[in-house]
Amino acid sequence: MTKAEISSRITLIENSSGLTDASGFRLAGTPCDIRGNGDLNRLDLALIFSKTPCTAAGTFTTNDVKSAPVLHCIKSLQSHAAGKHPMHGIVANSGCANACTGEEGMLNAGRMCWFAANLLGVNEEEFFVCSTGRIGVNMPIEKVETGIRESVKRLSNSKEESLRAADAIITTDTHRKTCTVKFNLGGLKGVGGTTVTIAGMAKGAGMIEPNMATMFGLLATDAKISQDLLQKCLWHAVGQSFNCISVDGDMSTNDTVLCLANGESGATVSEEDPDSVELFKAALEMLCFYLAKQIVSDGEKISRVITLHVNGAKTAADANKIARSIGNSMLVKSAWCGGDPNWGRILCAAGYAKCGIDQKSLDLYYDDVPVFLKGQLQADNEERWREVVGKKEFEVNLFLNQGTHDYRLISTDLTEAYVKFNMGE
Amino acid sequence: MTKAEISSRITLIENSSGLTDASGFRLAGTPCDIRGNGDLNRLDLALIFSKTPCTAAGTFTTNDVKSAPVLHCIKSLQSHAAGKHPMHGIVANSGCANACTGEEGMLNAGRMCWFAANLLGVNEEEFFVCSTGRIGVNMPIEKVETGIRESVKRLSNSKEESLRAADAIITTDTHRKTCTVKFNLGGLKGVGGTTVTIAGMAKGAGMIEPNMATMFGLLATDAKISQDLLQKCLWHAVGQSFNCISVDGDMSTNDTVLCLANGESGATVSEEDPDSVELFKAALEMLCFYLAKQIVSDGEKISRVITLHVNGAKTAADANKIARSIGNSMLVKSAWCGGDPNWGRILCAAGYAKCGIDQKSLDLYYDDVPVFLKGQLQADNEERWREVVGKKEFEVNLFLNQGTHDYRLISTDLTEAYVKFNMGE
Repeated sequence: MTKAEISSRITLIENSSGLTDASGFRLAGTPCDIRGNGDLNRLDLALIFSKTPCTAAGTFTTNDVKSAPVLHCIKSLQSHAAGKHPMHGIVANSGCANACTGEEGMLNAGRMCWFAANLLGVNEEEFFVCSTGRIGVNMPIEKVETGIRESVKRLSNSKEESLRAADAIITTDTHRKTCTVKFNLGGLKGVGGTTVTIAGMAKGAGMIEPNMATMFGLLATDAKISQDLLQKCLWHAVGQSFNCISVDGDMSTNDTVLCLANGESGATVSEEDPDSVELFKAALEMLCFYLAKQIVSDGEKISRVITLHVNGAKTAADANKIARSIGNSMLVKSAWCGGDPNWGRILCAAGYAKCGIDQKSLDLYYDDVPVFLKGQLQADNEERWREVVGKKEFEVNLFLNQGTHDYRLISTDLTEAYVKFNMGE
Repeated sequence: MTKAEISSRITLIENSSGLTDASGFRLAGTPCDIRGNGDLNRLDLALIFSKTPCTAAGTFTTNDVKSAPVLHCIKSLQSHAAGKHPMHGIVANSGCANACTGEEGMLNAGRMCWFAANLLGVNEEEFFVCSTGRIGVNMPIEKVETGIRESVKRLSNSKEESLRAADAIITTDTHRKTCTVKFNLGGLKGVGGTTVTIAGMAKGAGMIEPNMATMFGLLATDAKISQDLLQKCLWHAVGQSFNCISVDGDMSTNDTVLCLANGESGATVSEEDPDSVELFKAALEMLCFYLAKQIVSDGEKISRVITLHVNGAKTAADANKIARSIGNSMLVKSAWCGGDPNWGRILCAAGYAKCGIDQKSLDLYYDDVPVFLKGQLQADNEERWREVVGKKEFEVNLFLNQGTHDYRLISTDLTEAYVKFNMGE
C-alpha cells in the first residue's frame, strides 16, 4: 500500500469519547482531593480496566531522575514482556507526582496497583500506575485508596466515565485531550471486515502546580497484537509524535506513554499480514501525532505553534540536534512571540548545534517564502516573512543540503506570560 | 606557590582605566554612525594599537556560523602563530556584526584591517578586527573608514581615550566593562622587581539591536611572553570565565577574546621561570573572571545572578553538561526569577542531562542550606531556602557524589522583561 492508500483507510475522530471507543475497556474518573485543598469537584483519579487480559507496550521518560510510578511501570512492563503475566489496567492520578519520594514513594506506587488489582480480582503486577503533579511530597494514600474503591464501583464503558477519566489526568491543561482512530481489517480495500479501534487520552506538557512538567499518553486498542509487535509500533509512533514536541525543552521525571491491547475486536495485527501491521502502525502514529499536537497547542501560556522542518542533514542525529537547538532557543522563541522574522537567530542557533553546517549552502523558508537561498538573503521578501510569522501557526523550513536526513519538531514561542506563570509563589 | 600566595601577589583594579594601563598601548574611541541613525554622540569604533610588535592569542565562537571578522581573525592568528608576522592592534566596532554577509563581508573585514594598518605603517595581517551588532547587513565601509582615520589621529595612552574605546564596543550593556590586574616579577615574594600589567575591556552577552548576542573580551599586557604560552594561558583563563557564563544559552556568531602582549614592561613570562607563568596565568584568569561576571550581572533584563557548582561528577564533560542543563532550563530560570526555591526543577534538569546521576546519592544546597541530603528532602529548611533564593546573588551547590569532577557556571534568571525585550519589532 502507498502512504496515501494507508491514510485513506484510517478514520480519525477528534475529541472522541476516549478509551471506551475501544471494545472491552471500562473507565472511571473520581475526585479524591489529592491536592489537599478540599476541592471535591476536581477529578483526580482515573481507572482503566479490561477484564480480558491485554498485551501492553510503554515508553517512559529517559530522565535520570524517574518517579516511583515510572520505575514501577518499567518493572511491570519487563515481566510482562518476558511473558510472565498479562496486563489488565492502569491507575492514574493528578495532583501528586510521587517523584523524589524515596522508598515511601515506591511503596505507595505498588500499593496503588495492588489496591486496584485486588478489588478487580487480578494481580498487582498486571496494573500500571501513572502519577503527575507536585513532586517531593508523598502520595496521600488513604485518599487515593478511597478514590480507587469508588472508581472500581463506577467503572463503565460509557462516554461519560471515559471523559471523566480523561479529565482526571489533566493538570494545567485548559481542556481534556482525546482522540480515536479506526480502520477495517480483512475486508476488500478497507471495506467490510472487522473494525479495529485505537483510542487515546493525553495530558499536557505544561508546568504543574507548580513543580513539574509531565506528559501522559494513555492508549487502548481492541486489536489482538503481540507484545513485541505492539512495542515496536509504539516506539515508532512516539518517535514521530510525543518525542518531537518541545514547549520549553524541559523533560519530566514522569513522562509516560502506555498502550493496552485486549483483542476484543477479533481482528489480529500480525507480521503474517503485513497490511495489518502497516495500517496499525500508521493509525497509532496518527493518533499519537494528533494528541502530541494538542499538547503543544495547549502548552502553558504559549501564543504560537511552529512546525520546524530540518532537512538534508548529514545524519539523523544532526537533524534532531539542529532542530532542538533552534526550537529550544530562548532568543528564537522570544522573536516568534513578537511575530519577528528574525532569521539571524535561527541561523545562529542552527550554527551552535555544531554539526558542521555550511552557511553558504543553506536555504531557509518561512512557510514557502524564501528567506535565505544558498547563503544569500532574500531581503525583498521581508513583508511576506512578516505575514507568515504573524500567524498563530506557521512552518520554518531549513534545508542544509548536506545529506538525506530530516527531522520535524513541533515547537512554540516563549511568552512573558510563560515566565510569569512559572515564577512560582 | 600555593593558590593563596599567588592570589595575594595579584592586585585587581575594578572599573579600571582599561587597556592603556598596560604600557605601550594607545587607544581611541570614535563615533561614525555605523547604526545609520545619525547619532554622532554614540561611540561605535574602537582602535587599539601598540607600536611595539606584539605576540597575540585568541579564542573565538565555536558556532558553525562565524562572522566575517571572526574568520578574518582566525586566519591572521594562524599566520601569526606560525611565526610569519607580529600583531599590532585591533579595530573593533559596534552597530554592525558583519555576519551572514558572504564575500562582501569578508572583503569589508579585510578592508578595515588594511585601512587601519596602512595609516599606522604596519601590515593588514597585523591587525585583528571585531564587529558586533546587527547581522545580515553590510558594513557601511565609507563611514567606518572615516572613523578609522579619525581614530588614528586620536590614538592616545590617556585614560579618557581608553574609556572611549571601551564605550565604543558596548551595545545593550548598561555600562562599560574594564578591569586591570597587576603583579610584580623578579622581586622577593612579590615586593620590588618589575610590575606586569594585564588590562581588559569587555562587552556583554545581551541581545543586540535586535539580532544577535555577542561577547568580546579585548585584553592587553605589557609582559613579554611567547605566542604559544600566551595562547595556553588564554585558553585556560577563558575556560574558567567567559566559557562558564550563560544568560540564555545562545552562542553568537561573533564571540571573540583576544590578548596582545608587547613586552614593554621589560618583564618576561616564560616556562623557564615557573613562578612567572603561575602568576601570569592566575592574573589572566582573575581578569577574565571579573569581566565575565560583569557581563552576566549586566545581562539583558535579568534580575538575579546564580553561581551554580556541580561537584563530584564522573567526568568533566558530565559536570559541564549537568550544569548547563540546569543553568539553561527555562523552568529553573523562571523559578529563580520568582525567588521560588523550586528544587524539583533543578533535580529534573540535572536528570535530563542523562549522565546517569543517582537520585539517592545527591546532595543539594542553596548557598550552604541543605535542600536534599542523600536523596532525602530537608523540608524543615524551607524558610531558609526562601531567604537564599530571594537574594540578588546566590549559589546552588549540587554534589553528585559519583566522582571527582566539578564545574562552575555563572547563570541568571529568566524574566518577563527578557522576553519582552527580545520579542523584536
